[in-house]
Amino acid sequence: MTGFHPRNAAAGTCFRDLRPLFDPISLAVIGATDTPSKIGYELIKNIVEGGFQNPVYPVNPKLKSLMGMTVYRSVRDVPSGVELAVVAVPASQAMTVVRECSESNIRHLVIITAGFGETVGGSALEQELTTFAKSNGLTIVGPNSAGIVNTTARLYACIEPRPVTGSVAFISQSGAFGGAVFNYAKDRGVGFSKFVSIGNACDLNMIDIASFLANDPETKVIASYIEGLKNAEGFVEKMKSVTRRKPVIVVKVGRTAAGAKAARSHTGSLAGSDAIFAGACKQARIIRADDVEQMVDYALAFLQPFDSCGPRIGILSDAGGPAVAAADVCEENGLRIPEISTDCKKQLASILPSFASCTNPVDMTATLDPNLYQECIRILFNDPMIDGLILTITGHVRVQKELARAISGALDRRNRKPLLVSWTAGKDVDEGRSILLDNGIPVYLTPERAARAMAALVKHKMIIQKAAMLT
Amino acid sequence: MTGFHPRNAAAGTCFRDLRPLFDPISLAVIGATDTPSKIGYELIKNIVEGGFQNPVYPVNPKLKSLMGMTVYRSVRDVPSGVELAVVAVPASQAMTVVRECSESNIRHLVIITAGFGETVGGSALEQELTTFAKSNGLTIVGPNSAGIVNTTARLYACIEPRPVTGSVAFISQSGAFGGAVFNYAKDRGVGFSKFVSIGNACDLNMIDIASFLANDPETKVIASYIEGLKNAEGFVEKMKSVTRRKPVIVVKVGRTAAGAKAARSHTGSLAGSDAIFAGACKQARIIRADDVEQMVDYALAFLQPFDSCGPRIGILSDAGGPAVAAADVCEENGLRIPEISTDCKKQLASILPSFASCTNPVDMTATLDPNLYQECIRILFNDPMIDGLILTITGHVRVQKELARAISGALDRRNRKPLLVSWTAGKDVDEGRSILLDNGIPVYLTPERAARAMAALVKHKMIIQKAAMLT
Repeated sequence: MTGFHPRNAAAGTCFRDLRPLFDPISLAVIGATDTPSKIGYELIKNIVEGGFQNPVYPVNPKLKSLMGMTVYRSVRDVPSGVELAVVAVPASQAMTVVRECSESNIRHLVIITAGFGETVGGSALEQELTTFAKSNGLTIVGPNSAGIVNTTARLYACIEPRPVTGSVAFISQSGAFGGAVFNYAKDRGVGFSKFVSIGNACDLNMIDIASFLANDPETKVIASYIEGLKNAEGFVEKMKSVTRRKPVIVVKVGRTAAGAKAARSHTGSLAGSDAIFAGACKQARIIRADDVEQMVDYALAFLQPFDSCGPRIGILSDAGGPAVAAADVCEENGLRIPEISTDCKKQLASILPSFASCTNPVDMTATLDPNLYQECIRILFNDPMIDGLILTITGHVRVQKELARAISGALDRRNRKPLLVSWTAGKDVDEGRSILLDNGIPVYLTPERAARAMAALVKHKMIIQKAAMLT
Repeated sequence: MTGFHPRNAAAGTCFRDLRPLFDPISLAVIGATDTPSKIGYELIKNIVEGGFQNPVYPVNPKLKSLMGMTVYRSVRDVPSGVELAVVAVPASQAMTVVRECSESNIRHLVIITAGFGETVGGSALEQELTTFAKSNGLTIVGPNSAGIVNTTARLYACIEPRPVTGSVAFISQSGAFGGAVFNYAKDRGVGFSKFVSIGNACDLNMIDIASFLANDPETKVIASYIEGLKNAEGFVEKMKSVTRRKPVIVVKVGRTAAGAKAARSHTGSLAGSDAIFAGACKQARIIRADDVEQMVDYALAFLQPFDSCGPRIGILSDAGGPAVAAADVCEENGLRIPEISTDCKKQLASILPSFASCTNPVDMTATLDPNLYQECIRILFNDPMIDGLILTITGHVRVQKELARAISGALDRRNRKPLLVSWTAGKDVDEGRSILLDNGIPVYLTPERAARAMAALVKHKMIIQKAAMLT
């Protein structure tokens, strides 16, 4: 039954099947063009260069062929069985195209076209689109979307630069933030499984997509940038059933009057009260991040398959200042910096210089010996008093590679407690940082950022564990 | 009168003359050595390689010569007139050396030696040092210091990596954070005039050094990382007379019980109540930063000689999301996103595409035309409704250089309003970012960070202006 919308089913028990969006059997690209300045060019170029394996049908009445493919005059002319249409025509033609898609039995649409609810005169057009979609059982991403990406299927139906493959799904109301975040995240060692630019979100919103991706085996963490939520009925219950399965990190803007006004002219979003949203997030166990940088900070920690999680944090440092900074942020965020066991202290004292500090935070004091880092990490991880470890490094440009390898060698793969590293230095230690990232050790610029990520990780895991025990 | 301490004079009218610390006529390095694993080696190596032009006298009873220099058995043997001694001997010999310096009429000392108040048994030794210094009119940096740097004099009497030359003076209780921050700040386009690692601060503290540097023509911004304040009498009045002349940005750790405990074993600092410190900072017009990354963010903005400053901020973007994010943080921090003038709107509408948003925030929408950025900046800067501008850029890897040059070309050198740029992307736009920085345009990773820096800049300048009008 094509027109069935599981969104009307009981919350948490069902979700809309978005498989045809992310992995369509075939794909029509309406408005594909060979004019490089046009959006329809970026779109078809990304799809072709991305290497999508299923049939792609460009549609443009003015062209015969494009990048070696036959171009169709209308979507009604393409072979049947197309599951997804990506629409990049002018706003004036959008409704005609949508109707033609519906008539051709294409039920999933990504609408790149702008000029809907985000513009002064466009809300009527958006209402028309919404109503038509609902009464004809269409599933729509957008309008005013930058597209959709599924790195596993090599589907890059998107006008933003392509992300590297990884395990974060990013649902963003800003398309441009998508590409920009991909670029930045790549440097941080974070890649993406899916990307959906929801734009004005006339139909599918963050809740629908997150609910579907809760069951996506390629996605370990869901991250989202949103300006407002339409159709937010059942938000808490629906999102709770997502966060039970995987962490959801949200950057929400439009918090102030000025921001809300700007959001309205960007995606036509009604930002709503931030206090209400904050309360709903707390209930739904959503992790809020201050900006996209912190979103990546948190994703980095959540991507790792740590076996346990508790609030008692050990801090190991090669300099006193960063250790103090990390301790402050841990305690400010509800973590504890406990005494380490007598046995652990003795072991540390036996290998560290006499002027080192063998209480928690453990200050090895300036050392260039990578093995000392490795030994200290091992000793601290073996202490039953410690649930997780923050290691702060300053500088160490010359021995960066040896150091990163020694730290990586200290991980116990059988019982992995969280290890987050802050490495304060310039990009001259990027090689060392990369080695840590390649070994599954999240790296941050400052002790404060590492500690904030640790707090987000631990608090969330504990809430989820507790909830699981209660149900 | 050698023993005179101007610190006893009325607050704000006098300060200790630290010229011999930063620019000594000649310098003794006590504990200099040719053994690479020792601190005394790093120290003399940095001094020699740094290219200090005045005489340097290494002191070590076990050596005859070092790096081509004659080595003296004792500081009593060095030629007279030495103004500064840098001490890197074991703690057990420290007091002997300090006494010898005093007898040789060396009145300024930087004590690298650790093992004083920061250790369990070391507080008596530190008390002895403090008392001796006071009764003999010595001026001391440290103990447990990483050294002192004056880039203008090419004096690098420091065991941390050398910073690039610039206009920020950094007073840090953590030596390691010094070198690490230099490395990071270099990538952000920030260089240093002075660096003082105050360590345990048995004599000179942040207040003394900042008071001296308030009159240093090479220093435009004073940044500080501190764990606690000893001898903080007159903090507010003394720091007020500094902030009247130049901005002071402080990262204060030891805010929590865990942090305070760690600070005590790091520099022997008593961290004190953060609420009291926060209040004192507010009165003294000190800008507080969350971490060293934000300290650099703020320094970057304060280094620029903007001619005016007011709270009415224009936001210009090439994508809606970042504009919303910037607007939120501006308003959350007391800035305003006002309506722009009708004339300005008209001018923008005449050059921007029809679907662009010509109200504030101005959303040019995705454009690859660098000239459009330049024109829009000019138009907004000419609007009397706008005091400062945040420009948000996402991605734009391919046109980064042209774009950065076009933006730089938009600056009006006669009446410079603040322009801060957020360029969200990976390090693949570092070339573009560098061009902006070279042209005096601060660049940030996220709109939020640019907006926080703008808020710090504007609020501080307004407070200082108002204070100046009242006096």
